[in-house]
Amino acid sequence: MGGADRMVRAVRHDRGDDEVAIEEPLEIRAGGEPLAVTMRTPGNDEELALGFLFGEALIEEARAAGPTEDLAANTVEVEGPLVRRPADRRFYTSSSCGVCGKGALEQVEVGAAPVGWEGQAPRELLAGMPERLQQPGFTRTGGLHATGLFDLDGTALCVREDVGRHNAMDKVIGWALREDALPLAGRALCVSGRLSFELVQKAARAGAPFLVGVGAPTSLAISLAEAQRITLCGFAREGEINVYSGAGRVG
Amino acid sequence: MGGADRMVRAVRHDRGDDEVAIEEPLEIRAGGEPLAVTMRTPGNDEELALGFLFGEALIEEARAAGPTEDLAANTVEVEGPLVRRPADRRFYTSSSCGVCGKGALEQVEVGAAPVGWEGQAPRELLAGMPERLQQPGFTRTGGLHATGLFDLDGTALCVREDVGRHNAMDKVIGWALREDALPLAGRALCVSGRLSFELVQKAARAGAPFLVGVGAPTSLAISLAEAQRITLCGFAREGEINVYSGAGRVG
Repeated sequence: MGGADRMVRAVRHDRGDDEVAIEEPLEIRAGGEPLAVTMRTPGNDEELALGFLFGEALIEEARAAGPTEDLAANTVEVEGPLVRRPADRRFYTSSSCGVCGKGALEQVEVGAAPVGWEGQAPRELLAGMPERLQQPGFTRTGGLHATGLFDLDGTALCVREDVGRHNAMDKVIGWALREDALPLAGRALCVSGRLSFELVQKAARAGAPFLVGVGAPTSLAISLAEAQRITLCGFAREGEINVYSGAGRVG
Repeated sequence: MGGADRMVRAVRHDRGDDEVAIEEPLEIRAGGEPLAVTMRTPGNDEELALGFLFGEALIEEARAAGPTEDLAANTVEVEGPLVRRPADRRFYTSSSCGVCGKGALEQVEVGAAPVGWEGQAPRELLAGMPERLQQPGFTRTGGLHATGLFDLDGTALCVREDVGRHNAMDKVIGWALREDALPLAGRALCVSGRLSFELVQKAARAGAPFLVGVGAPTSLAISLAEAQRITLCGFAREGEINVYSGAGRVG
């Protein structure tokens, strides 16, 4: 895929030449106001901004979005107004969180109903998703994470790569928002790495019944997946998966 | 190491039992004011808070720090006042950033002088650091990142594991702050994963001449390492490294 060209840059090191993943800041503005700066790999910036704002429950539908007049400013403007005032959630939440992330879990539940989709997917299909996750940028750099959105016949609908794990998922969810494909009933999200609380949070907002990861889940990722009725599959390797929650959907 | 016990939790999945990395929110307060919430693995929370605040240039020396009276609140209080008002840097910076991260780079340079230490370290020593990075929690869960601080004879002075890559480094730098070991002249930081801008930023604040990573560097990590005169070594595997900046320190 030629798309990888804009994600990588040639560099020299003391033993030869390499390609590395490009990392640059992107400022996300909404309604004219600066909201966040994220370090991302350029490309699909509008999707990133929309997916990020949707994940934070600041918008509920696709908005007009584009670069500012100064194209060199690495800024994306999203049309306002926002659904709610952004809390000062410097990382995830500003309010005091109970032990075991109880407060954090409650906060998420406000923005996302448990996933009601009741179908099933074959185990082999879920376990094989990482192999279908085309990662041309990673192949060249070793430095990009990927998220893919799959139909349950194994078709990859959208795959995005980024230096930031969360950005890759935001880009996919932003794509789905624009395609009017949310909630993601009967579809699966697959990530190239580990399964953290924040990735489950984003999947929950998008209404995805399945979240598959190549790596390990965290304790809080499992708790949130249980609360949101997401089927959480980790260690997807060599044709196998461990299902940590919602195993009834795995046929 | 028994220390890993508090970092992991036993869970069941549909094919058996597992241990997963514990992830819980930690609220960092300074001078009585909530400043940030990070998702972290419990343990060494005071170091995490101090390292985080030092990395953000909000403190310049160790402070008294401890849990709040309600031990269940997952909150660490750090003695105030802060050196400066925290900017509203939701991710890394709130001000508009130039193309290629120029603005972000300039912002970092305010808080950290280029590393002046002029010694050398043997290539084999740097390349071998990941093998000396004891990761008992990762071994059990596959879900923890690690950062280690090493002397240039290969001695591991401090190793910390966490679900968050940045937290692991914050904990090590918080430890060094308490030990009055900053700046880290003549020492090396080694991380178990990829080398991003933010990790180089933290290493720069700590004055580390060497930053070694098992994974790939990003473009901006290399640019910042060059600007801060940090020797940046990536793909530290099987006794080799690629040196992306400051190769003059590799003997």
